[in-house]
Amino acid sequence: MSYLSKDFLLTTTSAKKLYFDYARNLPIFDYHCHLPERQILENKPFTNIYDIWLSGDHYKWRLMRNYGVDENLITGSADKKEKFVAYCTTLGTAFGNPLYHWSQLELKEFFDCEIEINADNAEKIWEYCNAYILNNNVTPKSLIEGAKVKYIFTTNEVFDDLTVFEEIAKKDFNFKVIPAFRGDKIMNIDAPDYKAQLSKLEALTNRITCISDLEKSIELRLKEFIKVGATASDISVERVTKIPAEKEAEEVLLKAIGGDKITEAEADIFKGYLTYFLMKLYAKYDIRTELHIGAKRNNNTKMLNTLGADTGYDSISEYNSLNCLSALFNRLEAEDSLPATIIFNLNPKMNTEIMTLLGCFQSSEVRGKIQYGPAWWFLDNKVYMEKHLKDLTSLGHIGTFIGMLTDSRSFLSYPRHSYFRRILCEFLGGMMERGEITNDFERVGRVAADVSYHNAVSYFKMDK
Amino acid sequence: MSYLSKDFLLTTTSAKKLYFDYARNLPIFDYHCHLPERQILENKPFTNIYDIWLSGDHYKWRLMRNYGVDENLITGSADKKEKFVAYCTTLGTAFGNPLYHWSQLELKEFFDCEIEINADNAEKIWEYCNAYILNNNVTPKSLIEGAKVKYIFTTNEVFDDLTVFEEIAKKDFNFKVIPAFRGDKIMNIDAPDYKAQLSKLEALTNRITCISDLEKSIELRLKEFIKVGATASDISVERVTKIPAEKEAEEVLLKAIGGDKITEAEADIFKGYLTYFLMKLYAKYDIRTELHIGAKRNNNTKMLNTLGADTGYDSISEYNSLNCLSALFNRLEAEDSLPATIIFNLNPKMNTEIMTLLGCFQSSEVRGKIQYGPAWWFLDNKVYMEKHLKDLTSLGHIGTFIGMLTDSRSFLSYPRHSYFRRILCEFLGGMMERGEITNDFERVGRVAADVSYHNAVSYFKMDK
Amino acid sequence: MSYLSKDFLLTTTSAKKLYFDYARNLPIFDYHCHLPERQILENKPFTNIYDIWLSGDHYKWRLMRNYGVDENLITGSADKKEKFVAYCTTLGTAFGNPLYHWSQLELKEFFDCEIEINADNAEKIWEYCNAYILNNNVTPKSLIEGAKVKYIFTTNEVFDDLTVFEEIAKKDFNFKVIPAFRGDKIMNIDAPDYKAQLSKLEALTNRITCISDLEKSIELRLKEFIKVGATASDISVERVTKIPAEKEAEEVLLKAIGGDKITEAEADIFKGYLTYFLMKLYAKYDIRTELHIGAKRNNNTKMLNTLGADTGYDSISEYNSLNCLSALFNRLEAEDSLPATIIFNLNPKMNTEIMTLLGCFQSSEVRGKIQYGPAWWFLDNKVYMEKHLKDLTSLGHIGTFIGMLTDSRSFLSYPRHSYFRRILCEFLGGMMERGEITNDFERVGRVAADVSYHNAVSYFKMDK
Repeated sequence: MSYLSKDFLLTTTSAKKLYFDYARNLPIFDYHCHLPERQILENKPFTNIYDIWLSGDHYKWRLMRNYGVDENLITGSADKKEKFVAYCTTLGTAFGNPLYHWSQLELKEFFDCEIEINADNAEKIWEYCNAYILNNNVTPKSLIEGAKVKYIFTTNEVFDDLTVFEEIAKKDFNFKVIPAFRGDKIMNIDAPDYKAQLSKLEALTNRITCISDLEKSIELRLKEFIKVGATASDISVERVTKIPAEKEAEEVLLKAIGGDKITEAEADIFKGYLTYFLMKLYAKYDIRTELHIGAKRNNNTKMLNTLGADTGYDSISEYNSLNCLSALFNRLEAEDSLPATIIFNLNPKMNTEIMTLLGCFQSSEVRGKIQYGPAWWFLDNKVYMEKHLKDLTSLGHIGTFIGMLTDSRSFLSYPRHSYFRRILCEFLGGMMERGEITNDFERVGRVAADVSYHNAVSYFKMDK
Repeated sequence: MSYLSKDFLLTTTSAKKLYFDYARNLPIFDYHCHLPERQILENKPFTNIYDIWLSGDHYKWRLMRNYGVDENLITGSADKKEKFVAYCTTLGTAFGNPLYHWSQLELKEFFDCEIEINADNAEKIWEYCNAYILNNNVTPKSLIEGAKVKYIFTTNEVFDDLTVFEEIAKKDFNFKVIPAFRGDKIMNIDAPDYKAQLSKLEALTNRITCISDLEKSIELRLKEFIKVGATASDISVERVTKIPAEKEAEEVLLKAIGGDKITEAEADIFKGYLTYFLMKLYAKYDIRTELHIGAKRNNNTKMLNTLGADTGYDSISEYNSLNCLSALFNRLEAEDSLPATIIFNLNPKMNTEIMTLLGCFQSSEVRGKIQYGPAWWFLDNKVYMEKHLKDLTSLGHIGTFIGMLTDSRSFLSYPRHSYFRRILCEFLGGMMERGEITNDFERVGRVAADVSYHNAVSYFKMDK
Repeated sequence: MSYLSKDFLLTTTSAKKLYFDYARNLPIFDYHCHLPERQILENKPFTNIYDIWLSGDHYKWRLMRNYGVDENLITGSADKKEKFVAYCTTLGTAFGNPLYHWSQLELKEFFDCEIEINADNAEKIWEYCNAYILNNNVTPKSLIEGAKVKYIFTTNEVFDDLTVFEEIAKKDFNFKVIPAFRGDKIMNIDAPDYKAQLSKLEALTNRITCISDLEKSIELRLKEFIKVGATASDISVERVTKIPAEKEAEEVLLKAIGGDKITEAEADIFKGYLTYFLMKLYAKYDIRTELHIGAKRNNNTKMLNTLGADTGYDSISEYNSLNCLSALFNRLEAEDSLPATIIFNLNPKMNTEIMTLLGCFQSSEVRGKIQYGPAWWFLDNKVYMEKHLKDLTSLGHIGTFIGMLTDSRSFLSYPRHSYFRRILCEFLGGMMERGEITNDFERVGRVAADVSYHNAVSYFKMDK
């Protein structure tokens, strides 16, 4: 097969049929991303490929660093075109890396550009894409609609301004933008600016002088999120920790309010309690929990001090979470307060232990109630998507899987959905070809479609 | 290839030749299972497909829960046919799950039924299989003999009644049923009914007032097991722990006898000692040890209280066992008391570290003395069988591997052996086709046959 | 494909073209091995296949033990031919084990012998190879040059005699032999003979009565290594530990000098400090660090007492190193003292977490500065090489990878390089055939060549 053919990643007749007949034309439900909602609302046209493609994407920056590119050409003062050329040069031999595929698909799907990305072609692509952007009035809306996105869940802190979502809802957009309720800033009690974060929450709710004040504030804000359509929430911790008594968590909170430095052990206590509290709250309001575990953040202090967080210096964590996760789920289950939850686990070595745990907490109240989320962040590539599908189908039931997300800050990242759908169809089609599953395309195609789109719509209670 | 063809899982000419000429027609040695020996002895005819297929199989229950089936249709009061239909519905899209294959193979191999399992066909299968069962006088014996099983090792507690085995031996069965000696109930000192368990052992042996009493009792019972043919034993722990001094273990035992609550740390001490003691005892009597590690049991207390243990609420454990396993083996080796042992490890992420450890304790006294057991329980599927074979062959020697077991409570589970043999032959045949191993079918076929059956016969010292 | 064809491991047209046109004929850079430099210098002819093939290779011994061969036929008093036959017998069914391939490739590449290795052919191979060895004056030099090796980095302790390397440099060898600076004997402070090791260092440098004396001694020796061409160093620890204060490390050192027994915790303190000190020193002199982690040594004390270390009784370790590795790199980076480093991680379950960490410490000063080393020791096989390549390409950039080593004590081990190159080309060629990467053979072939040879030359600053 030639590179970049329309059958990309589809090597069998069955896989092609599944993709083109059942999966390809479905809308996209991007149930976890970091798109800036205000930029969507403002919908300003882009003016060049650098701004839209490279300016804020730490996945790309990391790959350039891996290739030995000077930081000046990545986040430094070099000009946009030089940086663009450096990225194209990096990609020229990045065989097997998902960015090699994503980047090429991004140019193809958004700019109809099929030029192979490498140093030799960098100039040509630069000219072509910039002309395309200017000639076609490329905006956030045009990109989102062009990708047939129907639902976007942004990730918002408890104190974020929600009027933006109301304003977006009034626009003539063919897609909905809904915030997911995220407690990170309130949870990260060991952050140096914690009190400032807390103040933002107080300003919108009530004074916080004890743990129940905090709980009340959070609940008030959750209700506001629900008013603008929220059905999902987000918790992100390196590892799940023990659930302490409420009183222990309160002591840590009071210490933080008093301005004392919080130790790692104290932070664990507070986070352990708040995770439990939040999930219980989400159960009360039938809000889905997206629980992200396994990221070890900010490994490189020198670069953190230079560039700030989320600039490409995170890694996968080594911590186990299974025992604490089991205890957390067990406690919530015993209290009839386990919300429908998606575990996003970043360390693939723990796939099997966590997947088998989740199988102990299913329930008919929500189909696929406890989800093992898709291959995510570092694992969002062909190798680990395939592993994910193999593990998931061997240990669980693919029919209820809610499928892919982008987790992205970029308007160009939707090809990650088509990438996923191709790999999904290749996986299912391969089983058909090898006689491992039914030959009934309707039956298999329905699963391909459900996983690509419909299951997420049901799971997050959106309109069909 | 069409679904359910006779070449199922065999994609190359070499694989087919190996399977059909060397592996397929061999008897089955099921060296670890949980079949109820009394039911074999009584040999009562079955009357419907539900009882035989779904009534006691927590693998199937879990999959149904994963699919969102209501518990009432799984273990509840719904009628048998409704439950049967719910299971067929669940299977209809359980692509990639081993139950999808096993269930279909079970219908095919035992009832000559090739109807695809799904919601649409449920009624038809129900009628067909029930008619078959009534018309063919299906009994435990007919199922076991139909599957060409020659040896069955059941799993029995130290105080179990062994006369059943003597009675079975007098029957005109074409297979032998032999108990494996299991110390679980005596080992799990933190179980609430521990004293009751101990009493059962005392009743058959001597009063137990100190650790050496316990040791004597266990040895007495082991001798009884040996009289009815036992050559294997079974230890099951979430993780291997340190070997404490005998005295420390005795303190815990005395506390338990005194009726005190045993902490987790105390239980670890006792289990650590007893594992060491038992293995030393097994070495003395040349009994093989089946050491199961890596299961985390009863994650869901609510359901444990409702349904009891072994109902589908276990998971894979996250605990490491390597250092303690190394110390245990090293100590036994130093004392010339390391028995031939099979490690069944449930967490596949630890395959390589444990496999390489086992390579440090081989000896010519028993060929393949320290075995890395087959992909087991949650791992008993195509994906993890293939991983197991890849790891085993890369790090060890496939020629001595004793192959598959069912670990099952069901009389219908023997297709797990043909499933394994197909995957084994596909694996070996693939290497032949790709020119990675000899083209000599006799040589490769002999390994396929040895692993499928003969190695287990030798390893467990049965008649050839 | 027939076994042992010239296309071994190459199943596609693209893979064959990449291997034969771009990779196969390149020289070998063996940047980490344990060849005895004096034996190279002396260059005495070999007289039989046993001495050259089996006498010192614990990989082969392990496999024989796994197959149930009696120790007498492995390291015992049996005669050479008997041992040779036992090994051939072992290999006859060792399907999937890398030794099955390596051994066959060794006979082919060095003795032009294509006879299949098994019990039946053992006698014939014995006669053939011994005749070949006598007729062709086989010596270390002839083997090394025959394999087109250009650079060999041996592994030498800080106090090793370096004049051998000067003498080798004066010979008419077509290859260079350069020592890598290894601190093991100085680091392993809990070894019973530690004081004796320290004395050897003192004899060459200065008296060591405090930690700064030790540091000075080490630096003096490093300079001597650099004089004979060294550009690489070697650290080997089961796990990376915390960096303690210099003073804490000194206390342990003084205790050892005083003849006290060192506990494991104390040893960890000392090793933690010395790892940090050495890497900082290597940064100062622009010396590459080869950091080996994840080996658990000497599991079997009985055999350690009988045969000594490095005789086949090591395993993969279960310890995590990620957090300490992150802290170590972070500290060195903050001090502008992070040397170019290759992490050799022996536990494949940690591939993804470590690979993602390394991506946080890249820099343009050295291309591919922080390397994730190739599949190594137990992982030096097709299965784990493929996993390594999949992980590396998915998470990093293949273009900068410095490729393979032998890590061997044997002059016959160079086929491990052709083995690796075949697998690399099969991997890249497969991506080409499936349309996953460019169809441009020049571009892909350049990467194949860079990884096979050129990247290592640049990375280790050798002449091109």
